[in-house]
Formats: sequence, C-alpha cells, structure tokens
Amino acid sequence: MSIKALSRRIGYDFKDPELLRRALTHRSHGVPHNERLEFLGDSVLNCVIATLLFHLHTRVQEGDLSRMRAHLVKEQTLSEIALSLDLGDELHLGEGELKSGGFRRPSILADTLEAIIGAVYLDAGFSAAEQLIARFYAPLLKDLNPKTLGKDPKTLLQEYLQGNKLPLPHYTVVSISGEAHQQSFEIECAIPALNVHASGKGTSRRSAEQHAADNVLQMLTKG
Amino acid sequence: MSIKALSRRIGYDFKDPELLRRALTHRSHGVPHNERLEFLGDSVLNCVIATLLFHLHTRVQEGDLSRMRAHLVKEQTLSEIALSLDLGDELHLGEGELKSGGFRRPSILADTLEAIIGAVYLDAGFSAAEQLIARFYAPLLKDLNPKTLGKDPKTLLQEYLQGNKLPLPHYTVVSISGEAHQQSFEIECAIPALNVHASGKGTSRRSAEQHAADNVLQMLTKG
Repeated sequence: MSIKALSRRIGYDFKDPELLRRALTHRSHGVPHNERLEFLGDSVLNCVIATLLFHLHTRVQEGDLSRMRAHLVKEQTLSEIALSLDLGDELHLGEGELKSGGFRRPSILADTLEAIIGAVYLDAGFSAAEQLIARFYAPLLKDLNPKTLGKDPKTLLQEYLQGNKLPLPHYTVVSISGEAHQQSFEIECAIPALNVHASGKGTSRRSAEQHAADNVLQMLTKG
Repeated sequence: MSIKALSRRIGYDFKDPELLRRALTHRSHGVPHNERLEFLGDSVLNCVIATLLFHLHTRVQEGDLSRMRAHLVKEQTLSEIALSLDLGDELHLGEGELKSGGFRRPSILADTLEAIIGAVYLDAGFSAAEQLIARFYAPLLKDLNPKTLGKDPKTLLQEYLQGNKLPLPHYTVVSISGEAHQQSFEIECAIPALNVHASGKGTSRRSAEQHAADNVLQMLTKG
C-alpha cells in the first residue's frame, strides 16, 4: 500500500512523507529507523492521554487517572490500535524479523504506532498530534470506567463486598498438581454469607486466586 | 508574598490566578488541592523535556535520551528548581506538614513545581507550558553530557578503561564493621596498570564500590 493510502487511514497527511517512512522503519531494517521518533511519540501520547482523562473525568483523583492512563498506553492497547490501522502490512523490517513474523509482534506494532505519533508531532506540532490521538482513542475513552479499570479481580471483589457490608471471601486450596516449577493450582473462592463459591486454576497460587475471584465476581454482578 | 510577585518570579502571568493558588495547595491543606494538576504537569513536563532533548541532541539514541530525561525530571532536579524559585515560602500546607517542615521536603517541592506547570498548561495551552519549562531548564540543558549523564561511577570507570584499552579495575574489601543490618563497608578500587587506587565507604558493598570507583575516576580524569 502507498504512503498516501496509509495517510488516509490514519487520518493525517504528512507535509514531509519521509517522516512517516522513518516511523514505519524498524531498527532491524537499518538506519534511519524509528526509535527516536518512538521516544518522542511515547511522551506526546502520555501527555495527550493525561489531558483527555483530566478533562473527561473531572472528579477522578490522581491515582485513578494514572491507572487509567497506564491501561490506555500499555503495549497491548497500542498494538490493538495498530492492528486496526493495518500497520503490520506497512512495516519496514530486516530479514530476520520478517521471517519470524515481526509484523505481528505486539511490541513492534506498539512502538510503530508511537513513532507515527512522534512523526505527526514533528511534522505539524502538538495540536495535530492531539487530534490524531483523540481519533485513535475515541472508542476506548467512551467505555472507560474509572472505578474498575486496571484493578485486579481480588481487589474488585473485596471492594464489592465491602460496599455491600459483607465479610471478606475465603480462599482455599482445592488441589496442587505437577512437578515443582511446573505446578498447577486450583483454588476455591467462597462467600459463605451469599452461599456463592467458584474455583479458578493457575500456574501460581496468586493467579488461581485471581481467576476464582473473577468467577465469583461474575456470578455476583451478572444477576 | 503575593500571587503577583510569584507570577513574576516564574515568568508567567495567570489569566486565572485561582489555578496558581490551587497548584500551591498541598493535599494536607484540604480541597481543592494540587494533585490532579501535578498529574497533568508531570506528563507535560515529560513531553516538553523529550522534545527539547530530541532537538538538542540530534544524534543521540533513544536509550541515552531516556536516561537524560529521567535525570531532568527526577525529584531532586525538580526540587532544586523549586527552591531556586523560592516556592517553599508559597506553599499552602496543613498544620502537621507545616510543623514537620513540609515546605522544605523535596517531594512536596517537586510535586508543586509539576502542579504549577500543569496550571500554566491549563491556563494557556501547550506552547505556554513549553516556554515556561524551557526557561526553568535552560541552565541545566546547557551542561548535559549524553555520554555520562545518569550512569553510575562503576559503569563510567569501566567505559573509561575500555576506551583506553586498559584492563578492568579490581575491587577488594578493606574492612567490614558494625552489627548485621547496620554494617559499614570499605572497599578499594585499583587499576594496577596505572598504579592508581582509592577506597570508598558505604552501608552496602555496592555503594562502597561506587564511591571507590568515583574516587578513582576523579583521579584519572582531573589530571
């Protein structure tokens, strides 16, 4: 696909198309590559997301704003946006990365999206980058819930129970199987006061507890 | 001192002076306090410093740019800038913080400076914040050396020796004294090829080594 078509897809027309080409170039392909643009784009993205959250959630405190931002700028979120723009097809990768499927790797996709943001910022300034980011994130920002976002299931379950003046859940080990270093845990989470219980599995006690808490939480909140 | 005088000192005149008042208000003083402004200001500061470094150091790679930025936005650097603006005298603190000397605490000073940056950004936009930060940082940016900044003395010494094709230093324990958990270490760093050695003290082996390396480095580079 041409630079023109990609510009249409990201919704920004570069004055200097060379900047976009550099943003798409992974270091495995040689110099000039996109790492400096990624450094710049990462910082612009953090600032714009902070600004959007600040204005959208006027009563949310710093800690929750930070948690929401961390969720929005993490690799997984960025790589999903990159995929939605079909960025994978446009990457300039070295031979090795090409063969090992680098165009699908979340870290490469996320870095490239940040580099594109940095390139727009260089090409046209902060407000152009702000508009680009607001477009990329519009669907995600709509659905954010500052109360739950980024909290783990055990914390959410505890908050739910405390909010309803109920005692804390009990976690008990159902089974531990497998050799050391490859163990599998099954843990039950029970809320005796509500006669609700569910179990969860994981490769650590902690992750099994989280899965169990998540299952209980779904039973409590879907009803 | 009045808001007017402080505005003069930071070099920015607020359209909405209430924003500056909030930026100076620590959470111990009650609401509205400066934590949300600090969240915003921190992100603007990171972005502007990244931009300044990007343009000042056009051949420096991402890793070194990140290290330089980390140095410029860390608490100690921010609190020194805050002290140079006499911000400590202007803070609105609660009783407890006031009595315990909160106006001198580096974390409170640093947070307040970030909140002021956030307040200017809200009051007049990105470019006003950018000008403010560029003024605050002008003396610091002039003296940055991307090659050494933020690296610890052991790393710097090793790089110095490798650059001069010399063998690596020897570290030997001179003494360990004191009870467990309150030990004091003295370690000697020697460069036999140069007949140079110096010792350093610390509460851990690592910190004693760093001090020793720093002393050797000073002997090698001041000559």
